[in-house]
Amino acid sequence: MAKDKKLVESITSMQEDFAQWYTDVVKKAELIDYSSVKGCMIIKPAGYALWENIQRELDRRFKETGVQNVYMPLFIPESLLNKEKDHVEGFAPEVAWVTHGGQSELQERLCVRPTSETLFCDFYKNDVQSYRDLPKVYNQWCSVVRWEKETRPFLRSREFLWQEGHTAHATAQEAQERTEQMLNVYARFCEEVLAIPVICGQKTEKEKFAGAEATYTIEALMHDGKALQSGTSHNFGDGFAKAFGIQYTDTNNQLQYVHQTSWGLSTRIIGAIIMVHGDNSGLVLPPAIAPVQVMIIPIQQQKEGVLEQANQLYETLKAQLRVKVDDSEKSPGWKFSEQEMRGIPVRIEIGPKDIEKGQCVLVRRDTREKYETPLEEVPAKLAQLLDTIQADMYARAKEHRDSHISDAFDYMEFQNALDKKPGFIRAMWCGDQACEDKIKEDTTATSRCMPFEQEQISDVCVCCGRPAKKLVVWGRAY
Amino acid sequence: MAKDKKLVESITSMQEDFAQWYTDVVKKAELIDYSSVKGCMIIKPAGYALWENIQRELDRRFKETGVQNVYMPLFIPESLLNKEKDHVEGFAPEVAWVTHGGQSELQERLCVRPTSETLFCDFYKNDVQSYRDLPKVYNQWCSVVRWEKETRPFLRSREFLWQEGHTAHATAQEAQERTEQMLNVYARFCEEVLAIPVICGQKTEKEKFAGAEATYTIEALMHDGKALQSGTSHNFGDGFAKAFGIQYTDTNNQLQYVHQTSWGLSTRIIGAIIMVHGDNSGLVLPPAIAPVQVMIIPIQQQKEGVLEQANQLYETLKAQLRVKVDDSEKSPGWKFSEQEMRGIPVRIEIGPKDIEKGQCVLVRRDTREKYETPLEEVPAKLAQLLDTIQADMYARAKEHRDSHISDAFDYMEFQNALDKKPGFIRAMWCGDQACEDKIKEDTTATSRCMPFEQEQISDVCVCCGRPAKKLVVWGRAY
Repeated sequence: MAKDKKLVESITSMQEDFAQWYTDVVKKAELIDYSSVKGCMIIKPAGYALWENIQRELDRRFKETGVQNVYMPLFIPESLLNKEKDHVEGFAPEVAWVTHGGQSELQERLCVRPTSETLFCDFYKNDVQSYRDLPKVYNQWCSVVRWEKETRPFLRSREFLWQEGHTAHATAQEAQERTEQMLNVYARFCEEVLAIPVICGQKTEKEKFAGAEATYTIEALMHDGKALQSGTSHNFGDGFAKAFGIQYTDTNNQLQYVHQTSWGLSTRIIGAIIMVHGDNSGLVLPPAIAPVQVMIIPIQQQKEGVLEQANQLYETLKAQLRVKVDDSEKSPGWKFSEQEMRGIPVRIEIGPKDIEKGQCVLVRRDTREKYETPLEEVPAKLAQLLDTIQADMYARAKEHRDSHISDAFDYMEFQNALDKKPGFIRAMWCGDQACEDKIKEDTTATSRCMPFEQEQISDVCVCCGRPAKKLVVWGRAY
Repeated sequence: MAKDKKLVESITSMQEDFAQWYTDVVKKAELIDYSSVKGCMIIKPAGYALWENIQRELDRRFKETGVQNVYMPLFIPESLLNKEKDHVEGFAPEVAWVTHGGQSELQERLCVRPTSETLFCDFYKNDVQSYRDLPKVYNQWCSVVRWEKETRPFLRSREFLWQEGHTAHATAQEAQERTEQMLNVYARFCEEVLAIPVICGQKTEKEKFAGAEATYTIEALMHDGKALQSGTSHNFGDGFAKAFGIQYTDTNNQLQYVHQTSWGLSTRIIGAIIMVHGDNSGLVLPPAIAPVQVMIIPIQQQKEGVLEQANQLYETLKAQLRVKVDDSEKSPGWKFSEQEMRGIPVRIEIGPKDIEKGQCVLVRRDTREKYETPLEEVPAKLAQLLDTIQADMYARAKEHRDSHISDAFDYMEFQNALDKKPGFIRAMWCGDQACEDKIKEDTTATSRCMPFEQEQISDVCVCCGRPAKKLVVWGRAY
């Protein structure tokens, strides 16, 4: 039983050490393991099942907007990466280089894709000829590599899984619409499926993607008051098109450059699920994304009829939801702890006394509330309970987020808020990067975004006191 | 219209030049495109949609047998790859090496995974401790890299997509059962979904996987009489376990080595779909795997009521099957050619005259048979027609395969059969690798497998005349 004990021994409390709590949960909920390759992680079944659910739900939403999936090569020739100046400056310092294939040295180094704009551009250059070929709305699910120095499971690793959408359009307007459309897909996915409220907005020049004209972001707030950039959508204008020569003939037979976008969401979002919903007993998963939604745990399972009743419940429920029976030899107490550590939204306890009364006990993971429920009412009660949990989890996350947004009108307030009430800070900005740089240097906080919902909360920049141009949401971030 | 013309201009006939026919179909059915990275291909939407359907169907079948999905790193440290002697000898000559990360040279080279046995072993070494942790039945969907010199779309490329299953078991018997079970999953998948009959058997020592105790294979026959190895399943015994030190404590508290398997199927199988079912008008897709099963093509679509009727048909059918309407500005003739090139199993032609008669015309892609069908009978007729097409395609592929199996009793017959009736040759073998080597050198044919269904068709080896041990299926192969 050594292994079981290890699993359910108490984890570090988040109040004591949030970073250690996070690492404990990731490891003990068996989401990931470390590998022999420094900075690369192994995604274990419980972690990968989460990613599969994220993929399925997001892919369905993509396809509803006309997205088609493709697959581009893993490698980018150095000369191709070098074609767009800002882009290569942003990525070249952190890529892995392949120099040898088989026994021989390559004539040209290949980098392992850190992102695939250059490959899609190289493809579109030949594939797009006429206005009839537009728009191209392609996406791929793959892994990318960025040679990070400091790594943390899900949040920052040298290899991670993601999707990257890459589109080409006839007009600037269409590209802008697609950029915003996909950001909205991400925002709705986070709110409806992951129960994570997000702030949508535009990145500043300093924080935008290498090579983009404009970058849009969804920003979520973790339990410790730090921000997590959870998905981004970029409008490239015709910058890449000009660097790569991607032109089409329009209806008047004139050559035009295409306008492009890209947008991505990665396994990083699993870090957000953990840090928004988790508690000191482990993971808490929203029902909509939980690989197992209900765990049936028999009590005194050796007694006649108990396992039969548990299995009968399973048979009744399996068409309706993702349900399992834990009929292992562990004690019910261990099983409860495991189910809690893994964040399974509801457990059903059923023992001889329950069976006598024709009932079982439903226990919510998020609030630990218990409901004695007649067996025949279980399917209806569960359907309603899972909906309630999903809605309550979103409401709690939103309440936490909203109560951790401060408005700062001068620099002293800004610094005080950051230290005393970690969270998002809304403050006005003059638009000068020098102020962003100063704030980052003084406080380690960064501009998270210029939210779409703008408001003039003051006339002057929170940093320099000059006239304010934009409301910015600031925060310390992962 | 330049692009349309290119699409439907006639392709090379397979009788004239099979290799060129294959390349034409792959390109003109828009399955793949070449990339700037030599030997790596771009999988376009029509090709990737096929792979998605393959993944969904196969993944479902895997999970029914208890498989769990995981994700291992893309990179393998050189020292890890070197741990199992036969394995490294098989793969090291054809891997891509990463030597630099960011600006600095790595202390140890990393290869891009050609296959992940070593990574799974390194993981199991720590993750498996007790008999309670067994079996491990893990799989991953990913891309792998093998630095091939000659490449062909789907059949052989430097990077390809696949799944690789890796399992660990308490006993040799359980490992053997899993090895055979997964081979059977592949075989049934090929036959039931892809309509491709396969021969199941064991590879000879010469042809087995680097590091395996035994390799099992499914072998399919292409239209040109060449074989394609379409999926393999390996039993490693405890060889890797000993090299990596993967031990568990059994119920008697004794340390034991685990027994392992691995099994894989790749995008290569798309090459098989093309070369088993395709014809001189392009792809022919089995309905069970076709991304679009039915294309509705309106005739004289500018006439009142035609598009409305086409769209109404679409609305009636969309819940039942994968259907689209081609309402583009191209002529019906172009649309027919495109639908045929793309292998869409059925098209529905509907024009003013059909509407007058309250009917439409269903056309089978595989046989081109036409069925005038009253509109209200379309859903039922289509359901039955798609089933018939699927069954007929399998029957035709099997008939072709069976009629291209020859029995050879001496070496002259063997060579004659290879040249005059390309296909599988059944012939007895003494068990000596020297004969396999000679046959390969003389004829370029290889032993495809020792089929599970053994028969003693002669007493002597077809090559050397010494006493025969095994019936072997031979053939020239991709």
